[in-house]
Amino acid sequence: MLDTPLTRLLGIQHPILSAPMALVAGGRLAAAVSRAGGLGFIGGGYGDETWLEHELEVAGDAPIGVGFITWSLKSKPQLLDRALAHQPRALMLSFGELAPFAQRVKDADCVLLAQVQNLKQAEAAVAEGADVIIAQGTEAGGHGANRATLPLVPAIVDAVGSVPVVAAGGIADGRGVAAVLMLGASGVLMGSRFYATEESLAHPAAKAGAVEASGDDTVRSSVFDVLRGFDWPQPYTLRSVRNEMTERWHADMEDLEDSLATERPRFQAAVQEGEFRLAPLIVGEAVDLITTVPRAHKVVEDIAHEAAALLRQGPPGINVRGAAQQ
Amino acid sequence: MLDTPLTRLLGIQHPILSAPMALVAGGRLAAAVSRAGGLGFIGGGYGDETWLEHELEVAGDAPIGVGFITWSLKSKPQLLDRALAHQPRALMLSFGELAPFAQRVKDADCVLLAQVQNLKQAEAAVAEGADVIIAQGTEAGGHGANRATLPLVPAIVDAVGSVPVVAAGGIADGRGVAAVLMLGASGVLMGSRFYATEESLAHPAAKAGAVEASGDDTVRSSVFDVLRGFDWPQPYTLRSVRNEMTERWHADMEDLEDSLATERPRFQAAVQEGEFRLAPLIVGEAVDLITTVPRAHKVVEDIAHEAAALLRQGPPGINVRGAAQQ
Repeated sequence: MLDTPLTRLLGIQHPILSAPMALVAGGRLAAAVSRAGGLGFIGGGYGDETWLEHELEVAGDAPIGVGFITWSLKSKPQLLDRALAHQPRALMLSFGELAPFAQRVKDADCVLLAQVQNLKQAEAAVAEGADVIIAQGTEAGGHGANRATLPLVPAIVDAVGSVPVVAAGGIADGRGVAAVLMLGASGVLMGSRFYATEESLAHPAAKAGAVEASGDDTVRSSVFDVLRGFDWPQPYTLRSVRNEMTERWHADMEDLEDSLATERPRFQAAVQEGEFRLAPLIVGEAVDLITTVPRAHKVVEDIAHEAAALLRQGPPGINVRGAAQQ
Repeated sequence: MLDTPLTRLLGIQHPILSAPMALVAGGRLAAAVSRAGGLGFIGGGYGDETWLEHELEVAGDAPIGVGFITWSLKSKPQLLDRALAHQPRALMLSFGELAPFAQRVKDADCVLLAQVQNLKQAEAAVAEGADVIIAQGTEAGGHGANRATLPLVPAIVDAVGSVPVVAAGGIADGRGVAAVLMLGASGVLMGSRFYATEESLAHPAAKAGAVEASGDDTVRSSVFDVLRGFDWPQPYTLRSVRNEMTERWHADMEDLEDSLATERPRFQAAVQEGEFRLAPLIVGEAVDLITTVPRAHKVVEDIAHEAAALLRQGPPGINVRGAAQQ
């Protein structure tokens, strides 16, 4: 329906990728997205080998991708071999230098996608061999940095020549897809929209919370990384819905470090219980656009359909050179 | 060329507004934008009556708009009467409640545009009588808040019914215009792009700096508001290009307050001299897309043309339902 340099490179039908959300994007979600004509990614996360093996099995023979947190992969490089042994359609690396891993991905005849957060990183990733650049704006849920998607995408498109650019952050419907294609992107990567699907491994209370939440209510913070004991490098922070934990500690991180003996067990219990006043509900600013928890295939199909209709007919109420686009 | 609910409401040819940048957007810039078919705004800023009167005169009989900083206007409400006496096409209020001023604008038969930074403010502004909502993302240069344009615009479009929505922040070319029209916006407001035009009152060194700067290099901060002695309310901060001042003080605001006796004169001298290692170069993240300092009419015409071409032909390299859009 929408044929772009990205769909041609990856051999997919719709220019829609699901984000490799750690512990949320398992084999079932990734396979559902791929079977609907997009490309689904399993989240390699912080390197739980057993979890990854299991989710790769769950995905079965669907053509999926695998994504890793690059700085974390450095300490468990064998996970990359495990993922490549599954012969994924694509491998996505985010938050760190590609150089230690790029050649192995290419030797496996796998498309290498590099997610970046600014223009300088995009230029470096192309030099290091990325086949596709994912330009991630600050409005994204989960980890990210400071630049916003709308001005970042065209700046990267202008800088990287013929390398396809995928927009990530702030997109949850067909309007967003049509918009970023106008900016020169060849496709989209969506996290939050797939977080709130049936196949996502997010807690049911988190999915319901995503339907309720407003984009006004999210915040980028390191509170949950400190609580989880994850040593994220600068400048990456986690966007999630504001709750009691972020309100209490975001402006007071030193005190949080001093309070971990009591706060961490309290936090861990909340995660177990699905108590999102204390646990992180990890969605981005596009959560305003999320009002249902559908099957993932429906997300792919509806959004691809809406974007194609907008591109074909133009946005409603706008006339171009006298030709009504209604 | 591009006919939208905004162009019909304002009686203009192109859905392109220039931002009322304080001390930068004078009568010459506003008139040039309006004469090219957009709508140019004079920046009412912090309430210098003599400056405003002069710039209104400079604009002559061009149909322009005037913009005010709402919290500042509260202390000099007579400025609103001065502006309305000029019979502007539109009046823009940003950063505060409309209620104290909305009725006077409407009584003057003037279109009231309210610039907002989140969804809740948009709903309030419509309730208070705004005729148009300007949804300003965090990527904008100058004052603004935390939400990003790409997810904010469709959320506001969905919330405000038939009220036209204008996108601001992160837009500096025709791709950005076409993108936000896909999101449901009826037009754009651009600041940075007009900051770097011949008619802008920005210092020549600042315009040259805008051509050089990268969107990677900007930061939202209160450093320059403290240096200027402006008492901006939360959550508004100023986005400008990082320089020695922001690097030194951004993470150290309390020390800055204590150092004003020496820092303020140093800062004021830098502003006089056009020394932008210390003075603020006020542009947003879209500055990557700014590579020239053209006349303002050329900006309006080129961007309107590029956006219309994209909407008519679709983005290059993308095929919709087999119909090549090249």
